[in-house]
Amino acid sequence: MTGSLSVVGIGPGNQNLITPEVSDAIFSATDLVGYSTYLKRIPARPNLTAHQTDNRVELERAVQALELAYSGRKVVLVSSGDPGVFAMASALLEALETGSNKWKKVDIQILPGITAMLAASSQVGAPLGHDFCAINLSDNLKPWKRIETRLRLALKADFVTCIYNPRSASRPSQFSIVLNILRKTCESTRLIIFAKAVSTPKQNIKILNIHEAESEMADMSTIVIIGSSKTKKIKGTKFVYTPRFSG
Amino acid sequence: MTGSLSVVGIGPGNQNLITPEVSDAIFSATDLVGYSTYLKRIPARPNLTAHQTDNRVELERAVQALELAYSGRKVVLVSSGDPGVFAMASALLEALETGSNKWKKVDIQILPGITAMLAASSQVGAPLGHDFCAINLSDNLKPWKRIETRLRLALKADFVTCIYNPRSASRPSQFSIVLNILRKTCESTRLIIFAKAVSTPKQNIKILNIHEAESEMADMSTIVIIGSSKTKKIKGTKFVYTPRFSG
Repeated sequence: MTGSLSVVGIGPGNQNLITPEVSDAIFSATDLVGYSTYLKRIPARPNLTAHQTDNRVELERAVQALELAYSGRKVVLVSSGDPGVFAMASALLEALETGSNKWKKVDIQILPGITAMLAASSQVGAPLGHDFCAINLSDNLKPWKRIETRLRLALKADFVTCIYNPRSASRPSQFSIVLNILRKTCESTRLIIFAKAVSTPKQNIKILNIHEAESEMADMSTIVIIGSSKTKKIKGTKFVYTPRFSG
Repeated sequence: MTGSLSVVGIGPGNQNLITPEVSDAIFSATDLVGYSTYLKRIPARPNLTAHQTDNRVELERAVQALELAYSGRKVVLVSSGDPGVFAMASALLEALETGSNKWKKVDIQILPGITAMLAASSQVGAPLGHDFCAINLSDNLKPWKRIETRLRLALKADFVTCIYNPRSASRPSQFSIVLNILRKTCESTRLIIFAKAVSTPKQNIKILNIHEAESEMADMSTIVIIGSSKTKKIKGTKFVYTPRFSG
């Protein structure tokens, strides 16, 4: 008999942001599969086997989860944030599509979570208060030119733009290109927010204008929110928001 | 002494999607302020006063919450979904910016929640698996022309596009315009998802191509997800996803 596979999002870090639905799934699991950094957030207990993997092996991790579930285990595949936003759900479904036909018998559920941009937004006010977009800056899986075109169109549309995975050791220069585009395209008062390790004890948030921003302020634990032309600070408070009536 | 104000998101409907952080805030509140439909989801208890308001009076509701908090109450302002995504956080901050200066002394927190597009995405697979945007179709607060331009740029950028508030009794025709634009701009196999009352007992999800879609399939409890050119169904399963490597 096949088991089950739940792909869950454990949010950005704070345990209080994990939904009861996800906590229940973890509670009744026999096996956890995930990147070691995320599995460390889940307390060990008897009869729960943790299968830790390295980062950047999403497909292998998905295949392992499907195999375990097919063999009858109750598997939870762990993502940070929301599993559907630049996380494991898409990798899992890619493995399902391209892999063994027998896996299609596995009972698969995807359980949503608080993705980083929502947690970051809530910490500074309501920068996502109007139309917005989310762009993954990693070009491991797509050509850089395509990313740049998408960013330019997002700015033209005057979306608030959230940048996931802005900068890593292997891609130190691309976020500099983004900042250059912003400085050439946007008015000098345009706001940019760097939210690092949001909701964790290491949280560090900077609200700047684009000319104060430096590439080194971003890393893989940072979500960057570029305001629309209407995003603004509220005098005498710590808050930033984008008005609902932004044209 | 001033009290406190928490702007919280109670998710799309299912109690299991409310974060512990939000449940704790509701548990220690003295006053709830919100649209009656959302307040009904929260069980009554002694020493908790529920201030129900009509829909479409966001600013009045925000002012009421600020006044109560300033007078010393522990107030929770209730949004569905995430408060920062087309919900109460932006209205609250607008009231804070334009209203009485004394309100700036109130201790204000914004607590994130599961917004409808994440819940809808998880029900069908991973349509948000790659770069995406969210557009509020209501033109109560912005000109229609601006919305249409933004939609066209989103399609040009090949974002997955989530449409919030697609159609209401007072705006029956605008979503038809959206469908016409899609039919003229996109290939005929482009996928569109209608997720109505997601995560509730009334949930109803349709996965169609744009030529099968009809304007009447959407209402104010529906979130619409328009796939990118790469979004696809997985044969032999119920799942839809957007591959991670979509260029």
